Amino acid sequence: MTKIKPRTLSGFMELLPRQQMLFNEIERSLRDSFSLYGFTPLDTPLMEAAEILLAKGGGETEKQIYSLRKGDTDLALRYELTTSLAKYVALNYSKLTFPFRRYEIGKVYRGERAQRGRFREFYQADIDIIGEGGLDVLNEAEIPSVIYKSFITLGLERFVIHINNRKILSGFFDTIGLGASSADVMRIVDKLDKVGEGKLAVMLTEELGLSVVQANEILEFVTFEGDPFELLEKYKGRNKNLDLGIEELAAVKKHMMGFGVPETHFKINLAIARGLDYYTATVYETIMTDYPEVGSVCSGGRYDNLAEYFTDKQLPGVGISIGLTRLFYILQEQDLLNKSLLTTACDVLIVPMTDDLSHAVSLAAMMRESGLRVQVYGENKKLNTKLSYANKLGIPYVVLLGEDEISSGQITVKDMVEGSQVTATAALLTAGLCDKIRTLRSGVPIRA
Amino acid sequence: MTKIKPRTLSGFMELLPRQQMLFNEIERSLRDSFSLYGFTPLDTPLMEAAEILLAKGGGETEKQIYSLRKGDTDLALRYELTTSLAKYVALNYSKLTFPFRRYEIGKVYRGERAQRGRFREFYQADIDIIGEGGLDVLNEAEIPSVIYKSFITLGLERFVIHINNRKILSGFFDTIGLGASSADVMRIVDKLDKVGEGKLAVMLTEELGLSVVQANEILEFVTFEGDPFELLEKYKGRNKNLDLGIEELAAVKKHMMGFGVPETHFKINLAIARGLDYYTATVYETIMTDYPEVGSVCSGGRYDNLAEYFTDKQLPGVGISIGLTRLFYILQEQDLLNKSLLTTACDVLIVPMTDDLSHAVSLAAMMRESGLRVQVYGENKKLNTKLSYANKLGIPYVVLLGEDEISSGQITVKDMVEGSQVTATAALLTAGLCDKIRTLRSGVPIRA
Repeated sequence: MTKIKPRTLSGFMELLPRQQMLFNEIERSLRDSFSLYGFTPLDTPLMEAAEILLAKGGGETEKQIYSLRKGDTDLALRYELTTSLAKYVALNYSKLTFPFRRYEIGKVYRGERAQRGRFREFYQADIDIIGEGGLDVLNEAEIPSVIYKSFITLGLERFVIHINNRKILSGFFDTIGLGASSADVMRIVDKLDKVGEGKLAVMLTEELGLSVVQANEILEFVTFEGDPFELLEKYKGRNKNLDLGIEELAAVKKHMMGFGVPETHFKINLAIARGLDYYTATVYETIMTDYPEVGSVCSGGRYDNLAEYFTDKQLPGVGISIGLTRLFYILQEQDLLNKSLLTTACDVLIVPMTDDLSHAVSLAAMMRESGLRVQVYGENKKLNTKLSYANKLGIPYVVLLGEDEISSGQITVKDMVEGSQVTATAALLTAGLCDKIRTLRSGVPIRA
Repeated sequence: MTKIKPRTLSGFMELLPRQQMLFNEIERSLRDSFSLYGFTPLDTPLMEAAEILLAKGGGETEKQIYSLRKGDTDLALRYELTTSLAKYVALNYSKLTFPFRRYEIGKVYRGERAQRGRFREFYQADIDIIGEGGLDVLNEAEIPSVIYKSFITLGLERFVIHINNRKILSGFFDTIGLGASSADVMRIVDKLDKVGEGKLAVMLTEELGLSVVQANEILEFVTFEGDPFELLEKYKGRNKNLDLGIEELAAVKKHMMGFGVPETHFKINLAIARGLDYYTATVYETIMTDYPEVGSVCSGGRYDNLAEYFTDKQLPGVGISIGLTRLFYILQEQDLLNKSLLTTACDVLIVPMTDDLSHAVSLAAMMRESGLRVQVYGENKKLNTKLSYANKLGIPYVVLLGEDEISSGQITVKDMVEGSQVTATAALLTAGLCDKIRTLRSGVPIRA
């Protein structure tokens, strides 16, 4: 038979078992954290009618969409989760209760140029709160608080959530006579991190035709190092939008602290603009303290109208998205995954040393009842091969079950790390193993 | 702005929040059950190079594949999980340890005609054990035992796993002179459930040209009502393959009982053939006792060569697949989902009755620390609107936080089902709520 060379498409992350276990631990932990804040899980289709996904239209993203045709329908794979949420909320509007809080962790598809660390199939983990007509600023404080709690629970500790309010930026641009080109200025300011101050000044004057005075005032504003509220105090009363932004930013700060986010983990950063016009108030970017060069690993913000392409209903919201596959890739690359966490799929391997496997089978059933993850090694191989199986998979305990054990009604448990072994009744040893396994599995998946 | 009518493609299951919670409960429970048996989770891409997915080639399924093109690559969406497993094992052969046990729960795609209860995007939940060169029959007993345990844990109780061994069928056909057309006879016998005995006899004689004697002997064999081993005893010694099949079937039965499967939940059924030539020994079908008309909800069997299209390595295996989306659809249709299980995403709604939300925010943070899923109702609405939000979502407890509570350092908890309310310190009430919520969440998702 002619063989086909097995391969996985480039840009598609496919993990080996132990990495997959860690990935799943992270996913499960995120689901649990999001649930603590009352977010309901959604699972929308990966494929939609093309007109739905292209409703927003235009831009780079559209070029990257995977599209296909079946029968006479144009289809496409989703490239982010927000459009699916917008469709879902518009479609089920009368059946939902607002504010509607949902999370979704799912795969999205972008036909980007293949490149190290860039993925074509990747997970996003999104949380959003959608209001009906209005939505209190409290929600803009809660969204980053959920992220703080989620990351800390994962063991990820060295990060800072940068926060700004686009009303402040657009209000400020207005006060220096740039109201009309506010969106353009915002898009350029958003590049500060990438291009640096010098280049930014040149871009503002040359690309947008700003005066040197204007460019300098913008630079001073967005790179201000002291307490931003001191700087903002000077601008108060000059512009309604700016004043409103300052008020909201103060409320977000106050409530984040109330939600338990320490000041070490968030920072008001007047340079955060987010490229998208979609955002209208609070915006977020999350930077890993030791790896600023990888950019934001979790971004989002407040928007005024989630589903304007699908409905006349005014549905303001606030949301944030973790690029989960990319985050996992970075954690792997930087060796920040917790290797001491038990990442084998099996706690105990039962190794029968008799031809009759019945005792091993019954013992496995009994041990599983107590919550232990158990395999019976059923192949007829040498003892060394059986033990080597446990070693290769990193299974921490092996139960040896020979004639002696069976006739005495006892079992022998071998600790594969320490090499020690102990013989006693199955009931006694099972209880002890449960404790030990609980400890081995109790760690966090990330150590950073 | 022109609106686009929001819609979800037909054949794509998209659930409302409370149904989604139940679906996720089922998925999580299956993952936990599979883990107890030492299966490692995989998550393979949904998209592969077309040549990989079409390696097996031919058949109805190929017509249903969603294919697409990006750049100069022909791509396709997976239509089941086995081909992805075969590719994975062939690709990572040197990094895996055998026997390799994996589970995967993921979406697959089939462009079938849209039809009630038929899905184009649906979840499969697969478990497989892959051996290297050989694989003990013990594994053929363990696979259905995992399914038994998984279903019982979900609360699904009224089902029977039907078991047969294809060696018995092909050996038997051989003894009555039908060895050469064994595969054809098997395919027709597989239709017994659908067409009934009379029609089957006609098909055997007319379509395959069997004698009436042969057709009758086949019918008597596959519809035998007594202890199948008594019937099989008569055939022993006549055919090597048949003898081997009988031996394996007896071992499977014995070990299944050892793994804890009671005789009420599995049945040797000599009529189970499975259409696919792929299977070579033990085969399974799972029938819901009260809904035999929906057919098997979980099927599989033993195969000799998982990855023959990709590698020369001999990789025998045994696996089984739950059509999870279809099973969920049936459970919904037949009203078998446990409605008394708490399916809201929130345990406690904190309703602030002051303008200052700080106390509500701090209380939420404190209650979340104890594991309660908490929302703060932050919108400035009337008390009735706030309580109605809790009612609509089915949130069981509401905390009222007004001036009186704040000044006395206490909170008032309203039980939304009983209508009663109690005032005490937050610490005291939180502990009580944790107990009550644990009870509300402790049920199984299925009651059948």
